[in-house]
Amino acid sequence: MSNKKIVTLVKIGGNIIDDANELQQFLSDFSKIEGHKVLVHGGGKSATKMAKSIGLVPQMIDGRRITDAAMLEVVVMIYAGQINKEVVAQLQANNTNAIGFSGADGNLIQSEKRNHPTIDYGFVGDVKKVNTTLLQTLIEAGITPVFCAITHDKKGQLLNTNADTIASELAIALSEVYEVTLNYCFEKPGVLFDSEDDSSVIANMNAELYSKLKDEKAIHSGMIPKLDNCFNSLNKGVQKIRIGHHKMLKNTETICTTIQL
Amino acid sequence: MSNKKIVTLVKIGGNIIDDANELQQFLSDFSKIEGHKVLVHGGGKSATKMAKSIGLVPQMIDGRRITDAAMLEVVVMIYAGQINKEVVAQLQANNTNAIGFSGADGNLIQSEKRNHPTIDYGFVGDVKKVNTTLLQTLIEAGITPVFCAITHDKKGQLLNTNADTIASELAIALSEVYEVTLNYCFEKPGVLFDSEDDSSVIANMNAELYSKLKDEKAIHSGMIPKLDNCFNSLNKGVQKIRIGHHKMLKNTETICTTIQL
Repeated sequence: MSNKKIVTLVKIGGNIIDDANELQQFLSDFSKIEGHKVLVHGGGKSATKMAKSIGLVPQMIDGRRITDAAMLEVVVMIYAGQINKEVVAQLQANNTNAIGFSGADGNLIQSEKRNHPTIDYGFVGDVKKVNTTLLQTLIEAGITPVFCAITHDKKGQLLNTNADTIASELAIALSEVYEVTLNYCFEKPGVLFDSEDDSSVIANMNAELYSKLKDEKAIHSGMIPKLDNCFNSLNKGVQKIRIGHHKMLKNTETICTTIQL
Repeated sequence: MSNKKIVTLVKIGGNIIDDANELQQFLSDFSKIEGHKVLVHGGGKSATKMAKSIGLVPQMIDGRRITDAAMLEVVVMIYAGQINKEVVAQLQANNTNAIGFSGADGNLIQSEKRNHPTIDYGFVGDVKKVNTTLLQTLIEAGITPVFCAITHDKKGQLLNTNADTIASELAIALSEVYEVTLNYCFEKPGVLFDSEDDSSVIANMNAELYSKLKDEKAIHSGMIPKLDNCFNSLNKGVQKIRIGHHKMLKNTETICTTIQL
């Protein structure tokens, strides 16, 4: 058994952000998690809506947003401004002493602009390093960090960064110091054998089963990068990962997918 | 002589925020200030511009913004998102370890919704208390806090708050622990005897002179709430206040108005 203190890291997706009642319920449940905790939130549809309302045409390639200068302004104001501060204010109302961060704040997450051979993703950053020392200082001071999906290159440039990846990189960095459980919360009850059947949750997933299910094409395209990300985190020291509906945070008997090596 | 450590608190107005070159120069100079420092920024014209671009009609009474629900969303995204994160990223590039905050973050500035007998200001907050303990922890950890003009009521409601007032309240709170110099930086070289003549800077202002100049109507309307604010801060423990152009931060021989009791 490890003597490390526990940190519960939770990533919530856009579908929770977009539903005011769901978000409120989630933040109330999240606040009740005992011990140290960290939250990472996605952006939801607000950025797309705002972009359209000021006349921008959002572009996506393989589920990743193409972020030109105008779109970067929008995601910064929506992710780091509107959503992050709304989440922080609601957590404060739930007596969780949250502070909202982009990766630029405290140089907590430094990234570098993606340099792709064929696609210009624009102002998109791939995580380079996490300032674990400062993050630990904040956590030990009783702070619950709330991260949005914005990072920076330490040269003055803000960058849009995938929220799943931020959660995974934070979990890896924190696992040097803490015993980390990473929870990906989304609208489904877990990883499904049959994507059309919500009752077909795979309760326990390991590398062997994952390999088998990939061979059998039982796990489809969208889930593959997510699970690759998970196994990467586990290989780098994260103790446990769960994927499922956010009610798993409240009720330990809720079915979800637990991933371990 | 006090044995307290020094904190330099700087408030920059909208005219610096709105000019990319001025802002860059200011942030470079600010980064060179030795010792502990804190920055408070206004909103500039970006919020008004964004509000107009999504079809809102900004309303002001006596220089204070009327903040309905839609306008609150705009100021939160512009002040706490776009401007705050841009400033933080640039300070990081200047090797200043900045973290951007709204008052909701860490419950650093709690306010209450203004209840005015005749004017409904909407979601506007008057500062109630500053979390000095956490602010001190952050400053001692080597962090340079960067505050935008958004606070919260600790019940989940974000509130728009005057940036000059935030600077003043932070200065008062910090003066319990530090020797605080508060610097209001704007486009003018200081408080002027003649508002049309930039060479007429009043170099030293005290309560007696202020009272005399008010009686003589030499100090005009817009400057009165600003100076009342200053004397309130001085009466509550702030050691020194300066009003002037931001180049006074870099060059100590720059003319400006120094206010002491």
